[in-house]
Amino acid sequence: MVTDEQSASSLSRSELREIWSELSAEERVDDFKKLSAIDAAKFFADLETIDQARIILALPIDERRLWLRSLDPDDAADVIQETEEEEKQALLEMLDASMRSEVFALLAYAEDEAGGVMNPRYVHVRPDMSVNEAIIYFRKQARTQQETIYYIYVLNNEQHLVGTISMRELLLASPEQQVRDVMRTQLITISENLDQEEIANLLSENSLLAVPVLDKDGRMKGVVTVDDVVDVVQEEATEDIQKMGGSESLDAPYLQITVIEMIKKRVGWLSILFIGEMVTASTMQFYEAEIAKAVVLALFLPLIISSGGNAGSQASTLVIRAMALGEVRVKDCFRVIKREFVTGVALGSVLALIGLLRVIFWPSASTIYGKFFVSLGFAVSLSVFGVVLWGALVGSFLPFVLKKVGWDPASASAPFVATIVDITGLIIYFTVANIFLRGAVL
Amino acid sequence: MVTDEQSASSLSRSELREIWSELSAEERVDDFKKLSAIDAAKFFADLETIDQARIILALPIDERRLWLRSLDPDDAADVIQETEEEEKQALLEMLDASMRSEVFALLAYAEDEAGGVMNPRYVHVRPDMSVNEAIIYFRKQARTQQETIYYIYVLNNEQHLVGTISMRELLLASPEQQVRDVMRTQLITISENLDQEEIANLLSENSLLAVPVLDKDGRMKGVVTVDDVVDVVQEEATEDIQKMGGSESLDAPYLQITVIEMIKKRVGWLSILFIGEMVTASTMQFYEAEIAKAVVLALFLPLIISSGGNAGSQASTLVIRAMALGEVRVKDCFRVIKREFVTGVALGSVLALIGLLRVIFWPSASTIYGKFFVSLGFAVSLSVFGVVLWGALVGSFLPFVLKKVGWDPASASAPFVATIVDITGLIIYFTVANIFLRGAVL
Repeated sequence: MVTDEQSASSLSRSELREIWSELSAEERVDDFKKLSAIDAAKFFADLETIDQARIILALPIDERRLWLRSLDPDDAADVIQETEEEEKQALLEMLDASMRSEVFALLAYAEDEAGGVMNPRYVHVRPDMSVNEAIIYFRKQARTQQETIYYIYVLNNEQHLVGTISMRELLLASPEQQVRDVMRTQLITISENLDQEEIANLLSENSLLAVPVLDKDGRMKGVVTVDDVVDVVQEEATEDIQKMGGSESLDAPYLQITVIEMIKKRVGWLSILFIGEMVTASTMQFYEAEIAKAVVLALFLPLIISSGGNAGSQASTLVIRAMALGEVRVKDCFRVIKREFVTGVALGSVLALIGLLRVIFWPSASTIYGKFFVSLGFAVSLSVFGVVLWGALVGSFLPFVLKKVGWDPASASAPFVATIVDITGLIIYFTVANIFLRGAVL
Repeated sequence: MVTDEQSASSLSRSELREIWSELSAEERVDDFKKLSAIDAAKFFADLETIDQARIILALPIDERRLWLRSLDPDDAADVIQETEEEEKQALLEMLDASMRSEVFALLAYAEDEAGGVMNPRYVHVRPDMSVNEAIIYFRKQARTQQETIYYIYVLNNEQHLVGTISMRELLLASPEQQVRDVMRTQLITISENLDQEEIANLLSENSLLAVPVLDKDGRMKGVVTVDDVVDVVQEEATEDIQKMGGSESLDAPYLQITVIEMIKKRVGWLSILFIGEMVTASTMQFYEAEIAKAVVLALFLPLIISSGGNAGSQASTLVIRAMALGEVRVKDCFRVIKREFVTGVALGSVLALIGLLRVIFWPSASTIYGKFFVSLGFAVSLSVFGVVLWGALVGSFLPFVLKKVGWDPASASAPFVATIVDITGLIIYFTVANIFLRGAVL
């Protein structure tokens, strides 16, 4: 939430936050109680929701009321959402009747949809007011609202949104005109259930400061503002990045999450990938005879499978990000695969050439790799080409598959793609080697 | 740049953009010329800078002027920045004198620092004006500014910023008060050279809508607003994600970049990683004798090195993101390594246990793995523990090293970390195997 306040105390917010990042949850609550009233107020407003909830619950009942009421309804709803079921009712009862009903309505929405992000307070006027009346009415409303107001919403008697006008436009219009004659009527609105990531894309694409939220009957329920969206964009990118690195999203700053929680978030995927990668051991078993006959084949194993993993990591990362930004949709699947095919062929060719030169022109190659080192070079080279192309295809296709079955495409992490490509990479390598070296060393 | 405009034509921006995403650069310019005046104006304002530049250059001279002048000075500067040296002067000369000097000043800043992102136009008043005079003066200024104004800046005769006041505060103050008595004097300001990523963090942390940019003598140069920052946050996250996936940042939407450019952005890192990974082939050579004696060792190679890569990918991803968000700084290096040590021990133990059980209790393990399959199991298990711990340490340390030498920590991509860990993983594996299996199969 934005307040007009810029800064007004001895310690800056970032200094306070820095001190806090060193402390445990309990120490933080203790520390908070020691802050001066001004520092505490400033700091509290700026805390993560989960920390606000912890502090409110750690305070005596009469102080809880003060801090909870200091929040805007949408933030208060987020805090209450964080608490246990039995606390929720007690906290709700601390609010005055009008705020309680606002917060209660917000609790019905999921945290990551428009209804959960919006602020139910906004400045509204009637279409038949004069500009002058609207300015006076606006001043009256603005006095009781903590939010900075970007747009003024024009509602009819059924609470339907019929237009908007910016404060600037209101000030520039002549005072005796009617609001309906100066308002804009071409409106961008969103429904209560729109996902916050899509809201972020919408605001960013249309360069809007705020967008009104309407229910299915067209009644205005609240406003989502751009400053909320900055946080959403940061959070969504963080979640995606963490998933793409092969762990669950931490949902907390790196240094603030406990080590136990951190391990829990990471061990799941790591174990799944480990168990998946075990298939490579069984796959290798099929080729044990080949390795026994030509140990030299084993030397290039890590090189070949890692090339596939790297190509897959590039492709999946680019496609996942493009999906998150709305640049690529499910219907673009075929175009993407076509692109990755061409790209994979080009990248594979470059690496194949480097690989070929590496084996054939390596000092004393025939001593190290045996007299069939040229055939070996071609086998390595062609395998690299195959796994790079395959990596690019799997890496670009997998996010679409996950999206289709309803998972987060960001789960098509570099490690996940690498695991899949490793297994097939082995098969490609030994198959190619069999063709090139059969009758020679195999 | 934000305009108050919400939407006012037959085709929505996203529809227009969708149609465009299918076209080549040349087709886009042709298509643009066919748009109706309203659609064209709306669409042009919303284009990526590079596309705006392409279109302006493709138009006849007299039309260039029109479109270039339709931009705010900061956007016009970005467009001119995109063109060749010889075009720059010609484009600058198309601007009227006052805008030309603004644009010229902006061109001196790097695109990604405060001076390059800021808008040099803002509404300012004098501290000794009355509130009423300020409102009248504000209306006059607002009429000539295309920007939506969040704050009004109070400047003294030397152009030094002495306070700010929001439009809402101005409207709520009594008309005869002096501006100096109602303005805020605790200010958050930034210098011209602050990096845009840090501006984004500052605005987000302090929930500000805009922040004034001062030169080193304290004179006000312009304003960076939150809507510019949403785009910055998206762009920075995209750049980081693409680098973390092991390619250069594309700097263009996935489906719009040409395949040739895409290959160029990807082939560099992929080749470097490939050449780096070649060290594994040379490393393996040292252990050729061991593999020849116990081919069974080769079976677990992919499993072991990939475990290290996955653990490293998790660690580097989490640390890089935490750095980008300002949660982790260089001075936190030791704390992070400590955390990753504990986490690595825990994760390594879990995977080691799974690995041990896999080898020892595999159906007919003694037939497949030989009679020393229990020793082999312990060798695999301990190696997994070692590489996972090592992966977590390398993955968390590398971003700090890159930051220290002035590189982007995001370059410590999953593939980069995996390559380093692969080489050491081999050494760990064969060393452990030598200890456990010496005298048995080795």
